[in-house]
Amino acid sequence: MRLVVSVCFLSGPGVQGGKILVFPVDGSHWVNMDLLLQSLHARGHEVTVVRTATSWYIKEKAPHYHSITITLPEAISMEEQDFFVTFLVKMLAIQKQGASVMAFLSFQWEMLTSLSQMHYQASQLVVEMFENKSLMQSLHDTQYDVVLLDPGLPFGVLVAHKLKLPTVFNVRWITSGEGHFVVAPSPVSYVPTSGCVVSDKMTFWQRVKNMFHYLLNICIDRFIVSPHYDRLVERYFDPDVSFYHLLQGTDIWLMRMDFVFEFPRPTMPNIVYIGGFQCKPSKPLPPELEEFVQSSGEHGVIVMSLGTLVKGLPVEITSEIAAAFAQLPQKVIWRHAGERPSNLGNNTLLVKWMPQNDLLGHPKVKAFVAHGGTNGIYESIYHGVPIIGLPLLFDQFENLLRLEVRGAANVLDVTKLTRENFLEALQEVLHNPSYKNSMNRLSDLHRDRPMHPLDTALYWIEFVMRHKGASHLRTESYKMSWYSYHSLDVIGLLLAVLLMLTAVTLGSIWFLCSRLCRRRKPKQE
Amino acid sequence: MRLVVSVCFLSGPGVQGGKILVFPVDGSHWVNMDLLLQSLHARGHEVTVVRTATSWYIKEKAPHYHSITITLPEAISMEEQDFFVTFLVKMLAIQKQGASVMAFLSFQWEMLTSLSQMHYQASQLVVEMFENKSLMQSLHDTQYDVVLLDPGLPFGVLVAHKLKLPTVFNVRWITSGEGHFVVAPSPVSYVPTSGCVVSDKMTFWQRVKNMFHYLLNICIDRFIVSPHYDRLVERYFDPDVSFYHLLQGTDIWLMRMDFVFEFPRPTMPNIVYIGGFQCKPSKPLPPELEEFVQSSGEHGVIVMSLGTLVKGLPVEITSEIAAAFAQLPQKVIWRHAGERPSNLGNNTLLVKWMPQNDLLGHPKVKAFVAHGGTNGIYESIYHGVPIIGLPLLFDQFENLLRLEVRGAANVLDVTKLTRENFLEALQEVLHNPSYKNSMNRLSDLHRDRPMHPLDTALYWIEFVMRHKGASHLRTESYKMSWYSYHSLDVIGLLLAVLLMLTAVTLGSIWFLCSRLCRRRKPKQE
Repeated sequence: MRLVVSVCFLSGPGVQGGKILVFPVDGSHWVNMDLLLQSLHARGHEVTVVRTATSWYIKEKAPHYHSITITLPEAISMEEQDFFVTFLVKMLAIQKQGASVMAFLSFQWEMLTSLSQMHYQASQLVVEMFENKSLMQSLHDTQYDVVLLDPGLPFGVLVAHKLKLPTVFNVRWITSGEGHFVVAPSPVSYVPTSGCVVSDKMTFWQRVKNMFHYLLNICIDRFIVSPHYDRLVERYFDPDVSFYHLLQGTDIWLMRMDFVFEFPRPTMPNIVYIGGFQCKPSKPLPPELEEFVQSSGEHGVIVMSLGTLVKGLPVEITSEIAAAFAQLPQKVIWRHAGERPSNLGNNTLLVKWMPQNDLLGHPKVKAFVAHGGTNGIYESIYHGVPIIGLPLLFDQFENLLRLEVRGAANVLDVTKLTRENFLEALQEVLHNPSYKNSMNRLSDLHRDRPMHPLDTALYWIEFVMRHKGASHLRTESYKMSWYSYHSLDVIGLLLAVLLMLTAVTLGSIWFLCSRLCRRRKPKQE
Repeated sequence: MRLVVSVCFLSGPGVQGGKILVFPVDGSHWVNMDLLLQSLHARGHEVTVVRTATSWYIKEKAPHYHSITITLPEAISMEEQDFFVTFLVKMLAIQKQGASVMAFLSFQWEMLTSLSQMHYQASQLVVEMFENKSLMQSLHDTQYDVVLLDPGLPFGVLVAHKLKLPTVFNVRWITSGEGHFVVAPSPVSYVPTSGCVVSDKMTFWQRVKNMFHYLLNICIDRFIVSPHYDRLVERYFDPDVSFYHLLQGTDIWLMRMDFVFEFPRPTMPNIVYIGGFQCKPSKPLPPELEEFVQSSGEHGVIVMSLGTLVKGLPVEITSEIAAAFAQLPQKVIWRHAGERPSNLGNNTLLVKWMPQNDLLGHPKVKAFVAHGGTNGIYESIYHGVPIIGLPLLFDQFENLLRLEVRGAANVLDVTKLTRENFLEALQEVLHNPSYKNSMNRLSDLHRDRPMHPLDTALYWIEFVMRHKGASHLRTESYKMSWYSYHSLDVIGLLLAVLLMLTAVTLGSIWFLCSRLCRRRKPKQE
């Protein structure tokens, strides 16, 4: 019954030569964006990336894009690694020790301060651009076709509005929450909110918790994130312009999400799903790695990577992990940048870097120990490799929960990890076929789509370039007042009419009765 | 900048030989369904259609499907033409004469009775099937892969549930309203409801009207349509099964809709848009018709068709139309099955049938006079031909409004039609280039999609066959109680807690104050 659908982009006159202005977000977000940019460049488009002078990953020079570098007067120049490692160490300490309420609140406050600081810097980048008249003139003169941006830091929408250009989002997170919440109806009764680790089937108390997170996210957005941009809108645009409406008015949302991973939820016509667009078939491994993998024989290989953050994992945890691995007949390839655990088994190969996609696509690989970043998760889904999850930060808890409820991952609390429970989790995933079967099913569903998600992304970016927007796919209902949007004014009117009718009816009955009674009384007298 | 994307279905092992059970709706709906069935048959699937012995269009024998004919004990055997013509004549009379409230209500009552009668018959068809043990056994033994149905008459979901088969809807209307309203959030503040002729940008009073239609549609559904099926569910299924949940639980909704036509609105991951799937390039005209078309010279041709219902248009209207046409330099091709107007001009060719798609695709055709059925509208959009609309019945008013607000149609009230205003409308569309430009823009947007909508439909039907459903795209939130779905219980709890906290705070303050006061009083004394 299997169908093969091949989608071919055929070059035609005028395909080449589009101009794209890009506002990326640094860090792991850039990995995704850069992939898109490489493909856009390969299709003949001219790509210009706006970056800051202190960017972590976004290089000034690259073969596939030009760049515009903005120097911020008060930029944080901390390295990404250090930033996140400091963060992780603090969080693990709090989680592990069952910290005091004050310590917890102070940590949350620190997080919110960092968030605010990030958005403040992003907003300052806009000021630097807007105040640089010659830069703005040159951007204007270049006549870009579209602005492509990651709205995790959404400052690019302001520049796009200034240049009167259509926008495309490459998005999963926006300002302070998950992207859909800004543009699609999101009933919190079954749509998990960002930061709330629940599935789409919640108990009453989970729904209360989800509502709490929803309200919290709204507050963070309204009081911590948006004000930075609101100030700019007030300063540079007409009074009828609103920062939030600029976000909501984006032409196309390329959502880095797929419904084998995300729970089904309401969506909008201008949301295009490109989850797993980075996935591709594996290539052969380097000879020495291939030799190591083959040496595993029938037992196969376990791959472990916790991203770049593992450096921050304390030695007491890594040594428990090493001890568990040492008891397995499988071979283990462990990407680890921190201190080498002293009890590392002979079966475990420690590497600073590994060709993760090629390894996950290798038939000998039986399981993936992962922190739950989305890149790794989609590669795992694509290749059908079940996961032992060790979530550390941010969305990793929610991400892994999505695989856990589908039976494709076994998730551990890293603060409670011991060699025994980690070994048990590994054995469970290796020997209970339901994990592999569940992941294979997700893989089948994920791969069965009319068009590869990367082609889908390119198609819709170029669609916006061809038609100078996609307004027919975009509702403008966000411009209504909240009470009109929810029909509260109409319901109010209908209730008032109903009340009035009831009152008039009851009044008439009372009047008639009282007249009847009065007539009777004289007779009785 | 134009991209050509070609989608190729490549045959592979096991592509052929799927088994599809089809529950179509008769009349114009069948035209759409039949097109899908022809394509499914061409792709090697075995198609079985369930029909009644008194079907209007669905023939017992066809080269591309088998049929199962059910004889109903009390079927209405009226011809479709007569049924609708009687209907139209009554409605025109009511609209024209500004009929009395009683006449209007009696007509509405008659409509609702017909609706109820249709659904009653559909439900009886299920009874006939379920009571026929050998038929049900043979359906069971055939091991169909999927049930494809038009939920305008949704009886097929009951059969599918009995046979434990996944379902695909080929849908625009369901039970008593537009399909989305059953499955996707539909804020009535900007989503027009069925029967309410408004756009997505409404005034307050239009929103009140829209809410009224929404409530009316719910009442019709709950009290007139659903009870027929609820009775069957009660009789044949377990108590936890609900007819409405069977509708909502459908795997894939192939929605005959495109957003160049429909207003943007919330949707769901398992809704696939196939609007315009019937559209295809035009073929050359028959020689005599081509000659007539060419004889129009630089002026071009107007095509007119009001579907099969035009027979019911009174002669005083058709003669006004004929008189207006006679004054034009254009040639006119008029599909007309009724009496020949005596004042027909020499430029007007009356035909009983015409190759509508081939005519609309002809470069000489300048405008289309249409009643606003969706087939004609999509052909018109596909070929970029602006419309002069004469809506007569049902959804035709709403359909034409959608083109009117986009500047691609000029719509007239047929009950107020005179030769003067009709001529004016024709001239306007012929000579004001904005109509043609607007329609060309819709056409460009409509044609610019990664995959032809017919291929999309086939892809997703086969997707459901391959994976035995598409549960990962389908929310089960409809199983929640309405107050949980809308989080009213959670909001209630939060409000109660808030109230309690306020009460405790105020109480404490009062208590403290009163204690303070008491202490002071003795001092003062």
